[in-house]
Amino acid sequence: MAYQLFYWPSIQGRGEYVRLALEEAGEDYEDVARGPGGVDALMAALKEGSTPSFAPPFLRVDGMTVGQTAAILMLIGERHGLAPQDTAGRLWTHQLQLTIADLVNEAHDTHHPVGSGLYYEDQQEEARRRSSDFTAARIPKFFAYFGHVLGDQDYLLGSDVTYADLSLFQTIEGLAYAFPKATARALAQHPNLDALRRRVAARPRIAAYLSSPRRIPFNEEGIFRRYPELDT
Amino acid sequence: MAYQLFYWPSIQGRGEYVRLALEEAGEDYEDVARGPGGVDALMAALKEGSTPSFAPPFLRVDGMTVGQTAAILMLIGERHGLAPQDTAGRLWTHQLQLTIADLVNEAHDTHHPVGSGLYYEDQQEEARRRSSDFTAARIPKFFAYFGHVLGDQDYLLGSDVTYADLSLFQTIEGLAYAFPKATARALAQHPNLDALRRRVAARPRIAAYLSSPRRIPFNEEGIFRRYPELDT
Repeated sequence: MAYQLFYWPSIQGRGEYVRLALEEAGEDYEDVARGPGGVDALMAALKEGSTPSFAPPFLRVDGMTVGQTAAILMLIGERHGLAPQDTAGRLWTHQLQLTIADLVNEAHDTHHPVGSGLYYEDQQEEARRRSSDFTAARIPKFFAYFGHVLGDQDYLLGSDVTYADLSLFQTIEGLAYAFPKATARALAQHPNLDALRRRVAARPRIAAYLSSPRRIPFNEEGIFRRYPELDT
Repeated sequence: MAYQLFYWPSIQGRGEYVRLALEEAGEDYEDVARGPGGVDALMAALKEGSTPSFAPPFLRVDGMTVGQTAAILMLIGERHGLAPQDTAGRLWTHQLQLTIADLVNEAHDTHHPVGSGLYYEDQQEEARRRSSDFTAARIPKFFAYFGHVLGDQDYLLGSDVTYADLSLFQTIEGLAYAFPKATARALAQHPNLDALRRRVAARPRIAAYLSSPRRIPFNEEGIFRRYPELDT
């Protein structure tokens, strides 16, 4: 297989953004850490070579190893037509991806506001405060932005799907899992984002992927965690 | 002037990463919000056009408007030789930038762990807990990574400076301002990073910039804030 993806084997996490792009591109890939001895292979590969990564995910192809989700997506986008080729379109897609990444970071920090090295149970009070700000102010602000960008188009850039659409789909799915009440409220304000989510889910390769065993279910080890006490 | 930078007028913040790249490139730029009526112009421009930004900074050039610090730096890097042109080198530079951005986000959240819309004074206890994890675990981990990548080279990619070097310089400067004790400890473990910092500061255009009135001093409104109670 051309692509080797290195990411934690039991969560969607940031690796899922890469999986979705490779699936939409119709590319075969080895999800290395999900194979036998996979986590050891992941940990060894993390430090190898001249372009090591600070953390998974990273992707190997044609002798290159690329880390950081947004950089990986830029590469897949260029190779498989999931972003425009011209400078302005390429950077605009990337700008949208980076803004989605900001939202994803904020979603992660709702359950780990004090530190990613500590357990949720040891920062539950802080998590409650942070989540209250996230659901009341941040989700609505991000959704208003993406709703404005999308407008009445099929996809964020117009008629052609890009990796940013796949990432926005995944992020809305994650928020709907983690914060069902707050996300339903926000989607009711922006039905075009709900339509985008359904439009991406219905793309043949994405639909096939979502119903396959390759799609790991959401769970409480990933970025998007359902802690009902945080969904206000 | 070819470039118009839109960013808050009284802080270094994320805009400083863009300023440093434009300064190193020797490019003239208008720092719009620092001119008369500038903040109004910034707020109006934020929502204008077909590629609006979620937040400053954003940069206008040749009819393009690009937001998100890392995307802006990619553009400047391509136009002014502050990154390699080949795919692998271009993406590696970007990967490093995105990892620096992760560190910058974590530095910001030390004083705003609960929410960026609340005052520091209203989340001081949480800030103390988060900073303790940041100084004890996160700064050492990031410095170990960048120290390993740098090795005994002059710059992160070898002999040529890239925008990632400028960004790492700025981030070390910011950490040394906000957390002087913790940063001194970490730099003592990685003298090559301290050397990189001095090497960048001594580049003629950067040195001229740093001693000019264009360089806004660090202060307690930006990303890197000196709250001595957090520097443990």
